[in-house]
Amino acid sequence: MSEQIKIHLPDGSIREVPSGTTPLDIATSISPRLAAVVVVARIKALHAAPPASTTDETTSEDAMYAADNTAAEKIVDLRQPLTEDVSLELLKESDPDALKVLRHSAAHVMATAITELYPEVKLGHGPATDNGFFYDIYREKPFTPDDLAAIEQRMADVVKRDEPFLRSYEPREQALADYAAHGEFMKQHFIEKFTHPGEEVSLYKNGAFTDFCRGPHVPSTGRVKAYKVTTIAGAYWLGDEKNPQLQRVYGTAFYNQKDLDAHFKHLEEIKARDHRVLGKQLDLFSIQELAGSGLIFWHPNGAIIRKTMEDWMRDECLRRGYDLVVTPHVMRRELWQISGHEGFYGQNMYAPMELDDAEYRLKPMNCPGHILIYKNSPKSYRDLPVRYAELGNVYRYERSGTMHGLLRVRGFTQDDAHIFCTPAQIEDEVVACVEFAEEVLHKFGFNEFKVELSTWDPNDAKHYVGDPKDWELAVNGLKTALNRKNIPYKEIPGEAAFYGPKIDVKLVDVLGRLWQLSTVQFDFNLPRRFELEYTGEDGEKHQPVMVHRALFGSVERFFGVLIEHYAGAFPLWLAPIQIGLVPISEKHTAYAETVKKELEAIGLRVTLDARNEKMNAKIRDLTLQKVPFVLIMGDKEAEAKAVSVRTRGKGDEGSTPLADFLARAKNLLETKAATL
Amino acid sequence: MSEQIKIHLPDGSIREVPSGTTPLDIATSISPRLAAVVVVARIKALHAAPPASTTDETTSEDAMYAADNTAAEKIVDLRQPLTEDVSLELLKESDPDALKVLRHSAAHVMATAITELYPEVKLGHGPATDNGFFYDIYREKPFTPDDLAAIEQRMADVVKRDEPFLRSYEPREQALADYAAHGEFMKQHFIEKFTHPGEEVSLYKNGAFTDFCRGPHVPSTGRVKAYKVTTIAGAYWLGDEKNPQLQRVYGTAFYNQKDLDAHFKHLEEIKARDHRVLGKQLDLFSIQELAGSGLIFWHPNGAIIRKTMEDWMRDECLRRGYDLVVTPHVMRRELWQISGHEGFYGQNMYAPMELDDAEYRLKPMNCPGHILIYKNSPKSYRDLPVRYAELGNVYRYERSGTMHGLLRVRGFTQDDAHIFCTPAQIEDEVVACVEFAEEVLHKFGFNEFKVELSTWDPNDAKHYVGDPKDWELAVNGLKTALNRKNIPYKEIPGEAAFYGPKIDVKLVDVLGRLWQLSTVQFDFNLPRRFELEYTGEDGEKHQPVMVHRALFGSVERFFGVLIEHYAGAFPLWLAPIQIGLVPISEKHTAYAETVKKELEAIGLRVTLDARNEKMNAKIRDLTLQKVPFVLIMGDKEAEAKAVSVRTRGKGDEGSTPLADFLARAKNLLETKAATL
Repeated sequence: MSEQIKIHLPDGSIREVPSGTTPLDIATSISPRLAAVVVVARIKALHAAPPASTTDETTSEDAMYAADNTAAEKIVDLRQPLTEDVSLELLKESDPDALKVLRHSAAHVMATAITELYPEVKLGHGPATDNGFFYDIYREKPFTPDDLAAIEQRMADVVKRDEPFLRSYEPREQALADYAAHGEFMKQHFIEKFTHPGEEVSLYKNGAFTDFCRGPHVPSTGRVKAYKVTTIAGAYWLGDEKNPQLQRVYGTAFYNQKDLDAHFKHLEEIKARDHRVLGKQLDLFSIQELAGSGLIFWHPNGAIIRKTMEDWMRDECLRRGYDLVVTPHVMRRELWQISGHEGFYGQNMYAPMELDDAEYRLKPMNCPGHILIYKNSPKSYRDLPVRYAELGNVYRYERSGTMHGLLRVRGFTQDDAHIFCTPAQIEDEVVACVEFAEEVLHKFGFNEFKVELSTWDPNDAKHYVGDPKDWELAVNGLKTALNRKNIPYKEIPGEAAFYGPKIDVKLVDVLGRLWQLSTVQFDFNLPRRFELEYTGEDGEKHQPVMVHRALFGSVERFFGVLIEHYAGAFPLWLAPIQIGLVPISEKHTAYAETVKKELEAIGLRVTLDARNEKMNAKIRDLTLQKVPFVLIMGDKEAEAKAVSVRTRGKGDEGSTPLADFLARAKNLLETKAATL
Repeated sequence: MSEQIKIHLPDGSIREVPSGTTPLDIATSISPRLAAVVVVARIKALHAAPPASTTDETTSEDAMYAADNTAAEKIVDLRQPLTEDVSLELLKESDPDALKVLRHSAAHVMATAITELYPEVKLGHGPATDNGFFYDIYREKPFTPDDLAAIEQRMADVVKRDEPFLRSYEPREQALADYAAHGEFMKQHFIEKFTHPGEEVSLYKNGAFTDFCRGPHVPSTGRVKAYKVTTIAGAYWLGDEKNPQLQRVYGTAFYNQKDLDAHFKHLEEIKARDHRVLGKQLDLFSIQELAGSGLIFWHPNGAIIRKTMEDWMRDECLRRGYDLVVTPHVMRRELWQISGHEGFYGQNMYAPMELDDAEYRLKPMNCPGHILIYKNSPKSYRDLPVRYAELGNVYRYERSGTMHGLLRVRGFTQDDAHIFCTPAQIEDEVVACVEFAEEVLHKFGFNEFKVELSTWDPNDAKHYVGDPKDWELAVNGLKTALNRKNIPYKEIPGEAAFYGPKIDVKLVDVLGRLWQLSTVQFDFNLPRRFELEYTGEDGEKHQPVMVHRALFGSVERFFGVLIEHYAGAFPLWLAPIQIGLVPISEKHTAYAETVKKELEAIGLRVTLDARNEKMNAKIRDLTLQKVPFVLIMGDKEAEAKAVSVRTRGKGDEGSTPLADFLARAKNLLETKAATL
């Protein structure tokens, strides 16, 4: 007679069922139609111990087996027998967790196809990734593109056979012996690494194919409906070049063809917007290997955009009551010891330089410089809040080979500010920071963003600097500020830095990608280390609250995101060349010159193509440069003091009086309009 | 019977006189009145060998004996017997060289007074300096201010006695023995250092005082009419702290009281304008020893001026056809080896930093960065001239202890540009550079400047890089450009750098001091090292001409000069606080707020002092801050929508309608007027 267990369902109902009942049984008991569309189940033990801590830095190899951890909440097969009281959620295809399971199952489908086609192969592991899946294969002969097509073709057969994914267990020694008998050296390794002697190991079978795996999987291969084998890459077994080389076969999978098509369309869009490609095409910037990795050279076209961004930012800072400061790029090593950067951040700093009087280090952050200015003269409560802003160039060591265009660099420019204020001023200051961040995003054409509030783990207070009272005050200040602005946010406890809570603003670009840029960060550490103070109304010395904030975050990174967001087609106020002038023939050049002067007089950047070339060739060149407006001028225009307007993305708009076009351009420029 | 020698006089006449005739004899023979006013003579041997090379870096100790060198031209006593054919110039008091001689004689007068008052002293040396003279004295007891007054008093006696300065010679061994007998260890040292065994040593006597000295001197102590003992400083004998401590007694001397008074007035003016003092008083910048020597922290008041300077400079560059670029602050060591900086300039660079992939060095110059951008894409003659401008932060190693405020630093910002052009474009480009330099100086209130053209020494061509044809072309380009602009210049052959000729523009500040800031510099070296090229009209590859040019030179240094030039009272467009508002009482604060808004709306930086303080205290504080305009507002002003204006340097100008003041301020701002 089996024991009864309680299953709590999302609607609040509780079902009492015999132990060993599966999620599929429950789905079927609710409705057979439901049973046909669910793919996997999310369960949470109701009386479980807290999860063992996991690290962020699991390797993909570790990840293979990580699903089967002791976490309270986990994803399981629909055929997994339930043996204790749990809350149960039946996941349909739309659930993001279900997609990961599908992709893992697709990897098994691909491995099935490969072993059927190429029985000589040895298998590594085949996990799901963020965008699909892969399987590591050992085979002496490299796979050809034809092989990949054949594999994809064979997968269709496996899917068609709709083989159920069935879990079974086997004594460890037997599994090892079986794999050894077939020369499956990688499987042997994984079993030895992830299981203990005496244990039973978990296997998944579909048809004739068996794999050492902890799952979970979709119910059967028939669920893998939309997939593609995409590419292949070489990798040494265990990352060691003395080991055999593996072929990592990549693929992706979705629950339907529409999602698969959308995925590839998205990838094409991302590729077309790659800021490294556009940066070269539009001559915006370069990285010069002779000068070093991760160091950006801003070419004239990029530098003029940078100037526009920086001028706007500096003026906006002044308008909002910040003071500008400028601090040096190198400072004595002793300062970085006092600040704690050498101790806590040293591995990200450039190496010290020894001069005759001291050792010096490049600044990785601007804070100590701003603090020295704060400390340079006594401060009273009347002086607060003090807000120091600097477009500060910082240098941080990143391992060679890890750099990526403008997005991951060794030298960048922070639009950095530090606010020193009284506890009573926190809330208004945070509101002002958030408003400023919103303004930055809107001004540069981002209309959607997500806010995260990282707080501490009060159960782990000893790992944080600062009084619990201060933390409470700061976190409440952040929350109240977000609430006052009606900004929805996600609170992430335990995600704060050891020195204070923070707000991160992640913008959403035109492709829906999230980018972490703006941040507002409390600091309870540096005011203490530098013994900052101000004289309060009570005549006593107090320690000010210190807030770091950066809105672009990094000018380089923001520019990279901006290039991809606009696909290099910058709005008028940012475009390096704003207007291109094309006289139809040589005799119209004089008129074009007068138009140029009038446009330049209102502050526009204009190029006049007076080459002896065909009009269409000139228009094509300017179009390739993504110039917002191309103005064409012939007899008719010269006579009527008009211009024929071609607007980027809109095409030929016909002849218009020059005065009208001037007014239109002036308006776009002054309002910093995002569209033409 | 003595030999005859020929004396060439400046009027072209030649006198034949017996060998041994003195300049004084000749002066007397011309006119006894002339003999009474000449102080010293400049002679030039007519058949002499070229001068031995001397270095710039003589120590003051070496300088003591340096007067008696083998130079073709030298200054001698009026009593110096002439023994060969010479050209002779009799110097009056107005000659700058005569002033140095006077000061050296004044040092002897002071030493005479000191030995009379304090016979126990031992003497070191007593040279003239740029601003006066000193004498190093060993005496156990420190001199008191009363002692200095007594010395000055006794000098009057020595002057009154009008003792002639008489030169004599003595065998070296006897002089050493005499000095040894009196314990004059320093004199012994100097004789041993500067004379050889067997030589006769030169002595000067006035009255009872004798000194080992090679002169020259004025005829007698009576010529030392206007002098002052100014100060005292400690110095170790030979700069070694294990040696006895000397007292260096400083003084200065002039030929008349008027010049002496003017000198001290000038010193006071310089002191009152010291940019380090004003920088602190006006809270413009600081140097933080904790961060390191020679590194500038720009405080809000200084940074807003810097922003104004830089914004103007960037916009002006764009207006004049420059492209902006931005390049990193660190680059691989290999690049600095290719550029030759490591070889030729390495001792001025910060030490290398080793990362995982390469060694890196801070940039001391921006040129290689700009060159990499030039080389990034092929250039044709149609693209030239290419003009890259950057406000580039460079770091150069200076020995610790040699830094001086903003004027000599380790980190500074060059308004650096590099022009790459064809030979045919040189002249126009140089004219444009010189015009731009003039505009910079005028805009920042400097109306006088001097131009130096440094060219090569064609007899020493092997020490220079580049073809003689290129040098000729470049020098002619520079000359033609200066002539086209009707700018007088001084040509200094042999002063060019090894890599090309240059124009230096030295501005003259309000105190008449010269400051080297702007420079336009050809470079035949880097285009060759980096193999720069462009495709000419002929379809062939050519090497472009490269010109470095900086107009502020260093933003930091220019700012230092600017502070001193304006004595911190900046013109309206540059002043950190442009307008100070003072409501007479609390009830006028609301009106002051509306005035503030109107002023801010036209872009003015305004501060409103709404403290509960007396009106006069507020006006005093704003005056100390050198705020251009203080506007006072009471009932009358609020009613009439007026302001009572106090203009810096002009005082109370009475009540004026707000609209009128707005128009006045707007005009000053827009024209960047140098005065209020």
